[in-house]
Parts: sequence; C-alpha cells; structure tokens
Amino acid sequence: MKHKRIVIALGHNALGTTLPEQREAAAGTARAVAEFAAADYEIVITHSNGPQVGMIHTAMSEFAMNHEAYTPTPMSVASAMSQGYIGYDLQSAIRGELVSRGIARSVCTVLTQVIVDPYDEAFYRPSKIIGRLLNEDEAHAEEKKGNHVTKVEGGYRRIVATPKPVEIVETDSIQALLKAGNLVIACGGGGIPVIEQAHRLKGASAVIEKDTAAGTLADALDADMLIILTGVDKVMLGYGTEGERPVDFLSVNEAQAYLEDGEFEEGTMAPKIRAAIDFVGNSAVRKALITRLNPDGLEWQGTAGTMIGAGGMERVNA
Amino acid sequence: MKHKRIVIALGHNALGTTLPEQREAAAGTARAVAEFAAADYEIVITHSNGPQVGMIHTAMSEFAMNHEAYTPTPMSVASAMSQGYIGYDLQSAIRGELVSRGIARSVCTVLTQVIVDPYDEAFYRPSKIIGRLLNEDEAHAEEKKGNHVTKVEGGYRRIVATPKPVEIVETDSIQALLKAGNLVIACGGGGIPVIEQAHRLKGASAVIEKDTAAGTLADALDADMLIILTGVDKVMLGYGTEGERPVDFLSVNEAQAYLEDGEFEEGTMAPKIRAAIDFVGNSAVRKALITRLNPDGLEWQGTAGTMIGAGGMERVNA
Repeated sequence: MKHKRIVIALGHNALGTTLPEQREAAAGTARAVAEFAAADYEIVITHSNGPQVGMIHTAMSEFAMNHEAYTPTPMSVASAMSQGYIGYDLQSAIRGELVSRGIARSVCTVLTQVIVDPYDEAFYRPSKIIGRLLNEDEAHAEEKKGNHVTKVEGGYRRIVATPKPVEIVETDSIQALLKAGNLVIACGGGGIPVIEQAHRLKGASAVIEKDTAAGTLADALDADMLIILTGVDKVMLGYGTEGERPVDFLSVNEAQAYLEDGEFEEGTMAPKIRAAIDFVGNSAVRKALITRLNPDGLEWQGTAGTMIGAGGMERVNA
Repeated sequence: MKHKRIVIALGHNALGTTLPEQREAAAGTARAVAEFAAADYEIVITHSNGPQVGMIHTAMSEFAMNHEAYTPTPMSVASAMSQGYIGYDLQSAIRGELVSRGIARSVCTVLTQVIVDPYDEAFYRPSKIIGRLLNEDEAHAEEKKGNHVTKVEGGYRRIVATPKPVEIVETDSIQALLKAGNLVIACGGGGIPVIEQAHRLKGASAVIEKDTAAGTLADALDADMLIILTGVDKVMLGYGTEGERPVDFLSVNEAQAYLEDGEFEEGTMAPKIRAAIDFVGNSAVRKALITRLNPDGLEWQGTAGTMIGAGGMERVNA
C-alpha cells in the first residue's frame, strides 16, 4: 500500500526565538510529528527561521565588524547556518520521541537550496526586515554596500527581498530519503535562496517566505497533504470584526475569492492561504490544512483546523 | 556492476578560514571531487571545521554576552551551524562543477550527529583549544559554568574534549542517498558530538577529531577507500630529520609499528595514520590514501600519496 505523504510547515510558535525556547518548543513539536509517524505517513518537515536567521546574521555581522580578518556573512550563508541550528534541534527531538515510542524511522536534515528568479519583482521592492537597529551612519554604510535599509522607530533596519520559490534544488535527494523510510527535515526557513548563473548557483540576498516554500516543496514531492501549523485554531473570516467566524472548509475557489477580497492579513494568514491554493490547485486528491500546533498530540482529523480542498467540500460554519 | 565507494576527508587547506578563502578553496576541491564523480565512484565527502566552528562559537558567545535576551550557543549547536556554513559552500561548488561537466548527480549535505561515550577518558583530559583569548575574569567565569580553560600566551583559552566517535547516527540516511546516486556531504567537522541518554541524544561539549570520524564513517558505509586529503604529498618517515623520506606504501602492520615508534606527529599525521589503520583493519580490499589535495584534478592513481593497505604491499621508497 502506498503511504500517504504529508509536508508539515512549522511556524514561529513551533520553534520560539532563543535556544532554550527552541528546545522546549521542539519537544512539543516532536510529539505532534510522532502522531503522524505512528500513523505511517511519509513525512517532510519544514520550518520558519525568522528570529534565528536574524540573530545569526546580526551575530556574524557584529563579529566581522569587531574582527578585521573576517568578512560579513551573506544572508544565504546565514540561512544555511540557521538550517543547521534549527534542524539539529528538531531532528534530535523528533528522533528521541520516535525511539521512545518504539518507532524505527531514520530522521535526517537536508541542507536545502531554493532557486529564485533574479528578475522576480520582489528584488525591486525589498520588504522583509532583518537584523538589528542601525544608526544613520551604519544605514548609509549598508546602502553603500548595495544593501537596502528602511527607516523605523529609533533608526534604520536592513530590508531584504522575498522572491517566490521557483525550484527546490534538493528535491531528488529528499525523494530518495522518503523512499527509504526517512522522516526528512528540509527547506528550513524557506530554503537557502539561490540564483542560477550559467552552471552555478549563487546565493541571493533574500529570504523566501516559508509557507510559500512549503507549498512548492509539497507540490514538488507530490504530497497528499500540506499541513501548516500556526498559532490559531482555524482560518477566520471577518477577522477583527464583529462578524468574525472560524471556517472548517474552504474550496480553492472560495479561498481565492476571500483572498482577493482582502480577508486575510498579509505577512500572516494570506501567504498560508496562497500556499494552500497553489498546492491544491485543480487536484481532487490534495488537501491543505491550516491549524494550531498542539504539542500534546495533534488533533488533525475530524473538524480540527481549516481544510482547503477541491470544490464541493462543505463549508460547515459559513 | 557495483561501483566503488570512497570517503574523502577534506582538511583545513581544502577549506581555508574566512568565507572568501573557503569559496576559493571549495572551487578547487570541487574540481578534485569531480574527477572521482567522472570515474563513477560512489562518493561521500567529509570535512574539518576547526577555524569555522571556532569563529561561529566565538561570534555567538560574544553576541549572547552583548544581548541579554540570548543564551550562549553550546559547542554541539555551533558544530551543527558549521555543517551548514561549510556544507552549503561545498555542495554549491561541487554541484556547479558536476553540472558544468555534464555529470547528472544530486549533491546533498546531511546534518550528521556522532555518538560518543560519556565515559571516554578524553572527557577527563580536554585538550582541544577553541574560541578566542580570554582574560582572567572571563576564564574564571567559564570555569564556573563547568567549562575548561588553559593558560596560553597572553591569557586563557577554552579547551574541549576530543572523544572517539562510537556511532554515526545518520548512517542509514547516507546509505539511502548513496544508493540513489547522490554525492553526499556528511559528518562535517567530525560530526555533532552527542551522548546517548535513555532514548535521547544530548549534545556534548566536545569536538570529534575529523580524520578519526572519517575512518568511522568509511567503516560504517563499508567503503572501498578512505582518502585523506591534506597539505603534504606523502607520509614522511624520519620527518624533520636528515634521513627524512616519503613512503608510497605502508602495510597496516608497518603503519602501526611506525605509529608506536612515534614517527608521526600528534594532532597532524598521527590521527590520519590511526584512522587509516582502523579503517583498513584486516580487510584485503580496503585501502586508505593520504595525499595532497590538487585542485587542478587529483592524481590519485599510480604513485601519488601514501597508500595504506593489507600486508604484502610493497613499500617502494623504504
């Protein structure tokens, strides 16, 4: 029997910011993931890296500033480091949880690069804030280096582009690991952003939106389900208004219509809905689930969360 | 036909210290590795991380010192980050080189943990110097945290244990990737040192000697050859004396005898010889080659380097 394949995208609340927070969050996440492993799913985990990549990039930049022999670390390299930083904790926690439940499955983190289009218009409008607060001199120095900054309360901060993922370079490797029964952690932080130049891949000064990358990954792996774990139980319609209400099901067309109506907040719910729509597409089989991470075990069946799938599914709460 | 399987261990000269050095060195290393790929070998690459893990550990420690919200990064986590830092550059350079030669092979970096024995006597005699120079107050602060320091010129520096590798946790994952034709980068910096506690793996404050780990990896993967690339053409006997001479071949017994006679320097050649001996053991098939990395393509056949193999091989220069 073919096992169902799922891609699980972990958000900030599944990882925390500092290392002790990450350790604790990873333990809860591992319990949730183990439920799927116990149900014999093929599993790929992907995760955000916002606070971590910011911390690493700042730490390495400050180090290079204070130690002449060193050059600053580009965003692409900081992203690779964050995949090590987070992947190690996740793989350790998940492996421990599986072993303690008697589930014999290898857990493996794959350093993942994601190709982006150098002509993606996001490069012309960088918008993602990273790193620490800068003073005016530092901001000018960044701009001289070709980096972008934006004015914020109390000074400046660097901003980078968030181009769309085009292709996940290590797809075949992830496939091979899944085929061998591995639980794979991949595409952390949306993947290391790279641009194709002739035969080479060159790191891009960018951050790929992790929900979007998760959708691309799930599509490339032809997963049955994309599960986006976040801090809310269900997708809300009329969010923040008196008529606010949760939804259990959305067809792709409904989701698209609500998205166009501006129902979902950019930077939080909108990219999740967009990833779900892109992944499900015209498929009658694929489903996307947006729900809260429950560290005591995931109630992902029945009416938990908001399911997005082919048209014809009922929208119970609407 | 079964393809021959090789494990290539890259030393400091294959990677450099700073990022620009690493980029340039990785390009040369990629050309050498591509020669093996062109000859259809199954290839696993492992690498040192001395300067890189030191830099990362120091950068993250200084960052935590200057930013209250953060805790210091343990050596195990710094090691995981260095696998991302180096693995990304290596995989990018090797992939580019393979594509430019028309070789269709996936390249993949696996975050690798290596189990060490908590009762390894190395934990009682930490000897590996890491991180930056400390003053007396800082040194005492480190000791209060349970870390070890040693007096050096101008102050103190942290020292960590170098326990022997016992088991490579991700062996099955690496096997699956090799089987699928991947060129695998694994066990970087000797691997992330971990200790088994009940069902869990816990990071150890240690650094595993990378040549020793390469030998363990080659053994676990049942490789045909372990190639240790370093800064010298051949193993020297009588090194630093008037009678100094290079050797082309050493039997395991000869290597063992010379090792016991103190012919090889600790910290440089001795661990390489030890890794070669442990890997070849009683096998009539396995061979270990210690030679210089030649970035213009590797002359690894014929009389290049020093080959260590089963008894009965001739020692041409002896």
